[in-house]
Amino acid sequence: MSKLVIVGTVAFDAIETPFGKTDKILGGAATFIGLAASHFNVDATAVSVVGGDFPQAYLDLLANKNIDVSGVEIIKNGKTFFWSGRYHNDMNTRDTLVTELNTLENFNPVVPEAYRDAEVVMLGNLHPLVQSSVIDQMTKKPKLVVLDTMNFWMDCALNELLDVIKRIDVITINDEEARQLTGEYSLLVAARKIHEMGPKYIVIKKGEHGALLFHNDHVFYAPALPLEEVFDPTGAGDTFAGGFAGYLAKTNDFSFENMKNAVIYGSTLASFCVEKFGTERMQYLSNNEVHKRLLQFKQLTQFDIELS
Amino acid sequence: MSKLVIVGTVAFDAIETPFGKTDKILGGAATFIGLAASHFNVDATAVSVVGGDFPQAYLDLLANKNIDVSGVEIIKNGKTFFWSGRYHNDMNTRDTLVTELNTLENFNPVVPEAYRDAEVVMLGNLHPLVQSSVIDQMTKKPKLVVLDTMNFWMDCALNELLDVIKRIDVITINDEEARQLTGEYSLLVAARKIHEMGPKYIVIKKGEHGALLFHNDHVFYAPALPLEEVFDPTGAGDTFAGGFAGYLAKTNDFSFENMKNAVIYGSTLASFCVEKFGTERMQYLSNNEVHKRLLQFKQLTQFDIELS
Repeated sequence: MSKLVIVGTVAFDAIETPFGKTDKILGGAATFIGLAASHFNVDATAVSVVGGDFPQAYLDLLANKNIDVSGVEIIKNGKTFFWSGRYHNDMNTRDTLVTELNTLENFNPVVPEAYRDAEVVMLGNLHPLVQSSVIDQMTKKPKLVVLDTMNFWMDCALNELLDVIKRIDVITINDEEARQLTGEYSLLVAARKIHEMGPKYIVIKKGEHGALLFHNDHVFYAPALPLEEVFDPTGAGDTFAGGFAGYLAKTNDFSFENMKNAVIYGSTLASFCVEKFGTERMQYLSNNEVHKRLLQFKQLTQFDIELS
Repeated sequence: MSKLVIVGTVAFDAIETPFGKTDKILGGAATFIGLAASHFNVDATAVSVVGGDFPQAYLDLLANKNIDVSGVEIIKNGKTFFWSGRYHNDMNTRDTLVTELNTLENFNPVVPEAYRDAEVVMLGNLHPLVQSSVIDQMTKKPKLVVLDTMNFWMDCALNELLDVIKRIDVITINDEEARQLTGEYSLLVAARKIHEMGPKYIVIKKGEHGALLFHNDHVFYAPALPLEEVFDPTGAGDTFAGGFAGYLAKTNDFSFENMKNAVIYGSTLASFCVEKFGTERMQYLSNNEVHKRLLQFKQLTQFDIELS
């Protein structure tokens, strides 16, 4: 089993979907990643920052899932990062209503001493310089660095993004962002171009259409489980990333074949995340439920054509 | 092995894509379905109508693929159905430039005597009354009737469409059309509603995102192979349907498990169709190429998570 460093926001979210709206609830990339990774009993730490307004109960929630929270800095006289968004009827697009960076503005992540030799680093969506500074702190070259990012950084910090992309092993990015980053419409060609930027493995997330894993000339396609309704997509991508990184940290096998399994675990966990608002579903998700849904994923995708 | 009746247009297409444009070339649903089904060496007939302007060489092309063309009526003083369209840059949407129904306007399909006891009937996209009249001609209840349709008939012949849908076993329909037919956004819920309309099996085609097969509470997801470039999507849906129906006719096994394989064969053949204009790629597709791509599909989708 490997140690896992998770870096990302721990935040307040307020969400509107066609099904309802929430007040400020627990959110943030590191939160979703941590909750997903907790299913693999890995030795994980979350590195983040919150303000004095952040309830201790939320930190306890992560700690109770065996996520070390000593790396979550609490700035007593600061306020926690807050994001608010409204999803459209198709649930695939959303408007950001409010973004208050607050303590995130001067976030200076500090990886706890005990985790600086971690084998797996999961860099949640943050400023590329912040992501880079985490890699700098590792005393041993990690076996796997996974990075998530978004179009916002392509627009306003492209050079820094390209710099950190050179230093990582796996990038997770959605389809539109992959197209924006490369100027290529074909995801196959886009993945090849991103590969040339550094990462050996490219995961392109297509929301309700699943996720693609690319490595050299190999491609793997994990569908998303067709769901009766998507209640709230917030955190699905982070949950995917947390399942992906958590599974790889647990199995300590970074081969392409095992990464396929990691993608399936990520998709499976993400399929739960969207069933309720925010982290609600992930807080009470049992291993038995995950196991059952993995069986569904097998039935969903496996076929039996004999080929010599 | 079963006999297979294919009903659909045999036509001229003129196509514009971002990669180029064609003059009038061979097209039509029955053409694409027949070319795909020919890979399974089934005893198949194409039922259609053309005008005196239709080259004998095109009919010979189907005949040489072992598709009986005695059911293709030739109206000497009529003109062949002609469709022209222009694809947008994303290749997922298109504008119809010309539709000349010509001989199709009074198409009265006649299933050749020798095929009226066929086990499998593949109804390509046509007016629902025309599709119904083919079912009427079958002297023995077919084991499997597959129907393809499109939004056009929902707009202008909904009751007739609902009538024929009651009489079939499998419907193939694209995602937007499934949503239009049911008023449901979730494809899972849409499939359930279509199931209630009659068909036991529902195939929802999602273009570059693959295809879903539904049967009661079972779902199977076949991805589309990620391609470097989609050159011309014309006929991909018909090729899918032809591969699906052809494989089932060959294996004579209409179980859900075998239908999964049929969906994979359909997707595999469709992945070739889009590589060149019109029927060009399908005319010269070898079984060896199909076999190789099936292996790619296995690698694309199969994973190895041990679950008890």
